[in-house]
Amino acid sequence: MALATHEVTAEDEIRELLDSWLKAVKAKDVERIMSHYARDVVAFDAIKELQFKGIEAYGAHWKACMEMCPGEMTFEMHELDVQAGSDIAFCRYIGHCGGTDDKGQEQSGWMRATICLRKAGGRWQIAHEHYSAPFDCESGKALTDLKP
Amino acid sequence: MALATHEVTAEDEIRELLDSWLKAVKAKDVERIMSHYARDVVAFDAIKELQFKGIEAYGAHWKACMEMCPGEMTFEMHELDVQAGSDIAFCRYIGHCGGTDDKGQEQSGWMRATICLRKAGGRWQIAHEHYSAPFDCESGKALTDLKP
Repeated sequence: MALATHEVTAEDEIRELLDSWLKAVKAKDVERIMSHYARDVVAFDAIKELQFKGIEAYGAHWKACMEMCPGEMTFEMHELDVQAGSDIAFCRYIGHCGGTDDKGQEQSGWMRATICLRKAGGRWQIAHEHYSAPFDCESGKALTDLKP
Repeated sequence: MALATHEVTAEDEIRELLDSWLKAVKAKDVERIMSHYARDVVAFDAIKELQFKGIEAYGAHWKACMEMCPGEMTFEMHELDVQAGSDIAFCRYIGHCGGTDDKGQEQSGWMRATICLRKAGGRWQIAHEHYSAPFDCESGKALTDLKP
């Protein structure tokens, strides 16, 4: 009897990790979010600072971001592309993020995400990530209303 | 007689590619800049659009950017980190960019860069890249004066 088999690829493993990360983000569970990162992660986030170095600094930033949006959060990944080797990989997607700010106002917008991963001890971890919105040269303002 | 040998690593090859790219950028040679990218490159640039898909669209954007800064251009890579597998790699750096705009004004600032590469036919190419400045949540303005 032949059994249908499916070899789990690096891409499958990474899509599963991103899915698990997304569930933790929607649950606003910072500890669970941070379990997806390498201890020496360096992150370029869309707001506030040029970079966050190490899991403690980045975890504190995640906590502050979650406190800025006390209501329900939406977060969708569009056009996800994963390119994976045996132990190094990168992904990109266009994210649609929304939430209710501390004044009760709904905010949502599109942004870009690049996620870079490293496999260590048989497990993929996010070693670097980069979120941003582009800005307009004339006004210097972030363009959060561009649509893909 | 023992000879000192040096095995060329993937990291060496990628640093050489970035060096060659940087020379082309400083020379404002768009054709030479574009020779470092894969045909199916998808780029998230710091300004104007959410994304540029394919080498034609991205090349046209590079050309427009070069025309915005007719004077001499400075571009420095700081804190470059390269993580490379056998055929997939990613890099990040903090860039210091400056130039003279079309009104003769000197402009310079710091930004973040993530460069993702794929080796095909024995040659590394940039398959994806992401440049940005973070923005301030209150004003919505890009923070181009942050220093690393």
